[in-house]
Amino acid sequence: MIIDVHGHYTTAPPALQEFRDAQLAGGCATLAPVSDDQLRESVEGNQLRILRERGGDLMVFSPKASGMEHHVPDAATADAWARASNDLVHRVSELFPEHFAPVAQLPQTPEGNLAGVVAELRRTVGELGFVGANLNPDPSGTWAGKPMTDESWFPVYEVLEELDVPAMVHVSTACNPNFHTLGAHYLNADTSVFVQLLQSDLFQRFPGLRFVIPHGGGAVPYHWGRYRGLAMRNGWQDPAELLSNVFFDTCVYHQPGVDLLLDVLPADNVLFASEMLGAVRGADPDTGVAWDDTLTYVRAAGLPEEALGKVLTDNALRVYPRLAARIGVRA
Amino acid sequence: MIIDVHGHYTTAPPALQEFRDAQLAGGCATLAPVSDDQLRESVEGNQLRILRERGGDLMVFSPKASGMEHHVPDAATADAWARASNDLVHRVSELFPEHFAPVAQLPQTPEGNLAGVVAELRRTVGELGFVGANLNPDPSGTWAGKPMTDESWFPVYEVLEELDVPAMVHVSTACNPNFHTLGAHYLNADTSVFVQLLQSDLFQRFPGLRFVIPHGGGAVPYHWGRYRGLAMRNGWQDPAELLSNVFFDTCVYHQPGVDLLLDVLPADNVLFASEMLGAVRGADPDTGVAWDDTLTYVRAAGLPEEALGKVLTDNALRVYPRLAARIGVRA
Repeated sequence: MIIDVHGHYTTAPPALQEFRDAQLAGGCATLAPVSDDQLRESVEGNQLRILRERGGDLMVFSPKASGMEHHVPDAATADAWARASNDLVHRVSELFPEHFAPVAQLPQTPEGNLAGVVAELRRTVGELGFVGANLNPDPSGTWAGKPMTDESWFPVYEVLEELDVPAMVHVSTACNPNFHTLGAHYLNADTSVFVQLLQSDLFQRFPGLRFVIPHGGGAVPYHWGRYRGLAMRNGWQDPAELLSNVFFDTCVYHQPGVDLLLDVLPADNVLFASEMLGAVRGADPDTGVAWDDTLTYVRAAGLPEEALGKVLTDNALRVYPRLAARIGVRA
Repeated sequence: MIIDVHGHYTTAPPALQEFRDAQLAGGCATLAPVSDDQLRESVEGNQLRILRERGGDLMVFSPKASGMEHHVPDAATADAWARASNDLVHRVSELFPEHFAPVAQLPQTPEGNLAGVVAELRRTVGELGFVGANLNPDPSGTWAGKPMTDESWFPVYEVLEELDVPAMVHVSTACNPNFHTLGAHYLNADTSVFVQLLQSDLFQRFPGLRFVIPHGGGAVPYHWGRYRGLAMRNGWQDPAELLSNVFFDTCVYHQPGVDLLLDVLPADNVLFASEMLGAVRGADPDTGVAWDDTLTYVRAAGLPEEALGKVLTDNALRVYPRLAARIGVRA
């Protein structure tokens, strides 16, 4: 079974965006009825078709990342937006339980909204069977908040640990014109959070906390020697010491990048993912391979069979134990 | 001749920092006399010794990057700080003309200080024989300014083009606790500026403008497929179209990273550099190779001889024509 741990519901029926637009316009937003057929249609020709065509089986599926828009300050708005988005993802996962496992959007705001975040975590994971959550290290969209190692984040970590679900560290839309959301902000966030973690003892305090850093870890594997050297010079822990709690996905859209990722990091710490349909669509005209067909790159990287099995399947089941339980129940 | 295009004067005599401290304390700052012997000593056991031990010949040498501190808002302070820093770099380059070629710190401020920047460019390049400048894409240290493709930057580009010198795109100290200066801010800046350029027609307007993106281009080569795909999807130019004007250094501190850089980018666009003595000091305990001994990695990457010559020598002379002229005169 091949598990893709990073997919977003970028093809949700228009009613969802209409709900959001009504919210932001200040009106009384109500999600118009969305039928099961509409939900089926929205993924059958898209994520589900492509997943299966490429040989994948199951996608860990969350609301559209750039649409989370945690910079909108009102907590009630954030709560309702996360609920509406998560409910649709949940319904997709109920319609196709063998192919989609839901991951939650959290109603973060620049001020935190911790009560809302904890409530939505408990609702989605505890009641609806979600297997993880996306946690935005920069809810302001301008990096106005505190690093993820600050104690203001700890109430969220306590619940993640208690529920035994990982968080994917994933920003939303950038609110600074210097940072293109998909080209720079996403990767910068991945890199920045890794360095925050490297300087802290967060995982000594929360040994059960697990973070998945997407987009191949931003710049981190490419600069792994820099981080080892910085750690030695500054008396930080060695980057390898983070690897009990920090994992990287394979959303790197060319062969040399995936080769480096799998060369530098242990096979235990890399989880297959494509972020399909996400930032990059279409195919490389030189090879005919779709940019985000990371399964092709991972297969071509020449891993030994056992390591390949970890990257494609086993690591996901270990990092997302509720995913394993969910499949066990469904199987 | 092996040319290292990225070294900073991180070992300047204490008088320079004392001058800076006096400036920031609001007093009347005067640089205490620094003797030629002090200057010789400051590099003979450091950059110069290591450069030669490793087999290098000439270092393109600029004031300490994290010390530029362009976030300090007063233009007169910035002017005096750049002058003092550049004058010491200039004196080192006059004492060891075969081994150091000077590159300027510019007196940027969050508000721009374009008059000061242009004046210092003309003084250092036009009068003192500097071969380039470091240009900070984020003088505020908080990314409060405009992207480098905004027309507010154009007066600087006009002078760079007129003087025929490249700019290394190099931030200084981060003023946001989310971004570790050496671990995140430097790399984020490299990545972000590349994406700014990818979306613009800047080099059609300034065909003679040349940027060197340091630290191996941040995350860019690792995510080269992402940029090709984003460009196709968004109707931007292909990343390859930037390569007449954009160059990358080799400050990537492990073998797999340098291998990827040289695999992904054409040999014409990679310039040997170490940033020694910079962010990372000491050696990898597993190999005994100094983290920043990038010459070892570049030599081990297995480039054909002609490509290796470009990376180690020829590209630097082409991208920095005043360096070529300077060596011609000195030779």
